[in-house]
Amino acid sequence: MVKYPSGSTAAFRKPVKRPKVRRSFSHRKGVSFSDRGMTLEQQINESNKYYLDEGIAVVHKKPTPIQIVKVDYPQRSKAVIREAYFRQASTTDYNGVYQGYYLDFEAKETHNKTNFPLKNFHEHQIFHLNACLKQQGICFTIIGFSSLGRYFVTPASFVIAAWQDKNKSSMKLEELEENSIEISSGFRPTLPYIDAVDQLIKGRK
Amino acid sequence: MVKYPSGSTAAFRKPVKRPKVRRSFSHRKGVSFSDRGMTLEQQINESNKYYLDEGIAVVHKKPTPIQIVKVDYPQRSKAVIREAYFRQASTTDYNGVYQGYYLDFEAKETHNKTNFPLKNFHEHQIFHLNACLKQQGICFTIIGFSSLGRYFVTPASFVIAAWQDKNKSSMKLEELEENSIEISSGFRPTLPYIDAVDQLIKGRK
Repeated sequence: MVKYPSGSTAAFRKPVKRPKVRRSFSHRKGVSFSDRGMTLEQQINESNKYYLDEGIAVVHKKPTPIQIVKVDYPQRSKAVIREAYFRQASTTDYNGVYQGYYLDFEAKETHNKTNFPLKNFHEHQIFHLNACLKQQGICFTIIGFSSLGRYFVTPASFVIAAWQDKNKSSMKLEELEENSIEISSGFRPTLPYIDAVDQLIKGRK
Repeated sequence: MVKYPSGSTAAFRKPVKRPKVRRSFSHRKGVSFSDRGMTLEQQINESNKYYLDEGIAVVHKKPTPIQIVKVDYPQRSKAVIREAYFRQASTTDYNGVYQGYYLDFEAKETHNKTNFPLKNFHEHQIFHLNACLKQQGICFTIIGFSSLGRYFVTPASFVIAAWQDKNKSSMKLEELEENSIEISSGFRPTLPYIDAVDQLIKGRK
């Protein structure tokens, strides 16, 4: 067993591959490039790494659930999965802990410029957010309008109500502006969503 | 999009396959059978389902992280993963929320009857528990002595200290008895670890 000198966490860290930065932005004229061409998921993962390294919060993306059917064990090399299937997740993609608070959120990106279609949220995600809310978690969504370079942290209660409304198929941009905390893509962290979490916590008190 | 009547959660629930109950216990003489021959993981998963259904807590096992290399999309049937590899997890297996508290734990089973070898904990698990502790999470391990039918909920602080002790290769059963909350395998839930969490929370206040 490898032991590490107490107090040092450096030995724990695996080298993390930085997401590739797109070099060509020519097809996205007139858009803020502070997100450096990363997907929303890449931005959040990079932010989570920053928050972890700085001791600010511990948030991880959950792996995609896979049903493994067949595994090969070739000699002198590692196990290879030869048959497996994607399974339906039963939770949101992200959760973690921040100053004693349980955080739980789903992140979604749209190319749409005027509204966010509610069908992008799945039943199990809405159910999970609702269950976590009842346990007093800090639950929200991060919605990215990639064509606009705008990002909204929206309390889960608002999203759940919109999703449950049978007459509603999307959340309009104006509705999100009114009911969210808008955050801007930056450098360190790439997407400072914990700033919005601070406001959600303050609002709850 | 399927919408559900507000207030009802039944539509959310997927049918959950019950773990198979072993019918023959003849090889395990003199042992309590209240765990019905389930592995520790099965017991915890079943308990988590009970806690979720009853609105007591929301805790899920994280999926195993997989690096997917090749996926086939056969016509008229779902995607098949044809080449993938197991990746190292960067967290513990379980986390969730209970009455506003962030819960994080790792569960391990041993056939050993007198001690629990510390090499069963991996560096990334210890690091993760430590990081979550600093964020005021309720962090612990569930150690099952399967030969004895005994289960211990041990605060992460004790496990981390033992793991970091270069002169220590295992935690003795007596040490665990002294520094843990022992729980008994039962019926509903199969493994009532939230009872121990209540004590951990009380102890922290």
